Amino acid sequence: MEVVKGVKMKVGILGYGNLGKGIECAIKQNDDMELVAVFTRRNPESVKILTEGVKVYSVDDIVKMKDEIDVLVLCGGSATDLPEQTPEYAKYFNVIDSFDTHAKIPEHFEKVDKVAKENGHVALISAGWDPGMFSLNRLYANAVLPQGNDYTFWGKGVSQGHSDAIRRVEGVKDGKQYTIPIDSALEAVRNCENPELSTRQKHLRECFVVPEEGADLAKIEETIKNMPNYFADYDTIVHFISEEELKANHSGIPHGGFVFRTGVTGWNGENNHVIEYSLKLDSNPEFTASVIMAYARAVNRLHKEGVTGCKTVFDIAPAYLSPKSGEELRQHLL
Amino acid sequence: MEVVKGVKMKVGILGYGNLGKGIECAIKQNDDMELVAVFTRRNPESVKILTEGVKVYSVDDIVKMKDEIDVLVLCGGSATDLPEQTPEYAKYFNVIDSFDTHAKIPEHFEKVDKVAKENGHVALISAGWDPGMFSLNRLYANAVLPQGNDYTFWGKGVSQGHSDAIRRVEGVKDGKQYTIPIDSALEAVRNCENPELSTRQKHLRECFVVPEEGADLAKIEETIKNMPNYFADYDTIVHFISEEELKANHSGIPHGGFVFRTGVTGWNGENNHVIEYSLKLDSNPEFTASVIMAYARAVNRLHKEGVTGCKTVFDIAPAYLSPKSGEELRQHLL
Repeated sequence: MEVVKGVKMKVGILGYGNLGKGIECAIKQNDDMELVAVFTRRNPESVKILTEGVKVYSVDDIVKMKDEIDVLVLCGGSATDLPEQTPEYAKYFNVIDSFDTHAKIPEHFEKVDKVAKENGHVALISAGWDPGMFSLNRLYANAVLPQGNDYTFWGKGVSQGHSDAIRRVEGVKDGKQYTIPIDSALEAVRNCENPELSTRQKHLRECFVVPEEGADLAKIEETIKNMPNYFADYDTIVHFISEEELKANHSGIPHGGFVFRTGVTGWNGENNHVIEYSLKLDSNPEFTASVIMAYARAVNRLHKEGVTGCKTVFDIAPAYLSPKSGEELRQHLL
Repeated sequence: MEVVKGVKMKVGILGYGNLGKGIECAIKQNDDMELVAVFTRRNPESVKILTEGVKVYSVDDIVKMKDEIDVLVLCGGSATDLPEQTPEYAKYFNVIDSFDTHAKIPEHFEKVDKVAKENGHVALISAGWDPGMFSLNRLYANAVLPQGNDYTFWGKGVSQGHSDAIRRVEGVKDGKQYTIPIDSALEAVRNCENPELSTRQKHLRECFVVPEEGADLAKIEETIKNMPNYFADYDTIVHFISEEELKANHSGIPHGGFVFRTGVTGWNGENNHVIEYSLKLDSNPEFTASVIMAYARAVNRLHKEGVTGCKTVFDIAPAYLSPKSGEELRQHLL
């Protein structure tokens, strides 16, 4: 891989929500990238971005700009946007997404791979931290310790899906849900006890709920705690707070988590080892965006090398993520 | 990359000390590998290995076996063995080493790269955990958080170099030294305080010393504590213990450590993030060996793909480390 310095990678963003804005901020931190366009499904005039001199376009005009963009970053949701968008835009662009519906990754991969290959593009799917950095750590640790156990914990952080679920409960005006890993479970894993942990033993769910005036609080609490899939299998704590308090103390989007592998080595498996990777993130979308942009750099380089098709974080040699040359990396980071 | 199942990778080991034995144990844990020969500079008849049916040869016979080995694992030391051995044996074999003299990696790389390319082999240098897994984590975290600080802590673990230094002190019969990261420093890093830490603030050194009969204990303690490079810049604790106690409680080779990157994201760097990777290892050589064998798998695959030259962990896509296929990895670990 040759590192060409001085030529900036031209980036387009499709979708300007929390993730799209995070991508814009990440580009600002990387000297070898520049934002050239933001595309939106909204009225472009209604979208104000942070980067001076860069225009917002309607998504209807996106194909016209196919020769002006090295990598298009797709910032839609995994439920309905990305399954359509990633294969569609891989026809015209090198693309990257953060598709995170784990069970549907194989299907998404196949679809995107076909289109990317047919059109001579590189696509990278499921970049972020889980899938993404957490997946990498699972893979490395499994390769290094073939006899062992994997554990993933999430939090402390805001679950968008669980917060949405709370807000759908009758009598709830607004709400936020935090997923919290349980300390005793973390400790048992760290101590190589190889625990078999139930859903309830791994995570706690803490809800901050703003009730509508006159709502039946006991009923709200019971409805939340017994909600199947979302809360019923967990110990759930419900706090009722005011709208002001929610805004003041719970408007951030922090997240994080832990990936462990514990395993044994030795002729008779007599020695224990713990590999632990953890993230503590003030902003889930901004960190996700930062991971995406490191992989966008790799996508651009692979395209220049003539590679085509769909890739995941598993397929990318780490050196492709860094703006530094191989010599610099060996000298300073090895 | 194609994953061919059923064909075992044939491994040779050069050097049968702690690391060589660790390699042998790691091979036993990986179904797609088999040990075919151990080479030694000692009298082969004096070396007893664990694997039934495998022979120990003199290193003088190694070249004769060049067509029977897919990857030769070099288990010598970094000071004098590997600078000679890795370029020499890259003439005849695909090789892998754990060269860990950080400052001399660029020079070692160039020498090995030249020979490997001239002879159509793949060589991978500096596999292990530092350099190795720690380096990977530094690279990934730097690529993801370009604005931030790096911290590496080692321990709690046995430093072979410092233990050797203790044993050279007059009046010392035997001894072990533990490198211990200082909790308050770890906490300051985790809290995003971005501390500037002196050598003394990062690690503590704890020594367990068996004195010779009638030795001057005060003098031993003072000599150790004031030893330049090894101890003078640290807070050092010296315990005098009996030979029996040393054997009973300090005969293991545990190690480990922490790699952090703390950084900011957001338009004005307003959000903090902490990436933490840590290892807690009962056996330093066995874990190092486990990392080496995952990378040996990659070396073998790259060779089959026609790749030549010297590589480091930075150049290897993670999927090459796993015996699983791309489909399996995407389905189960992404």
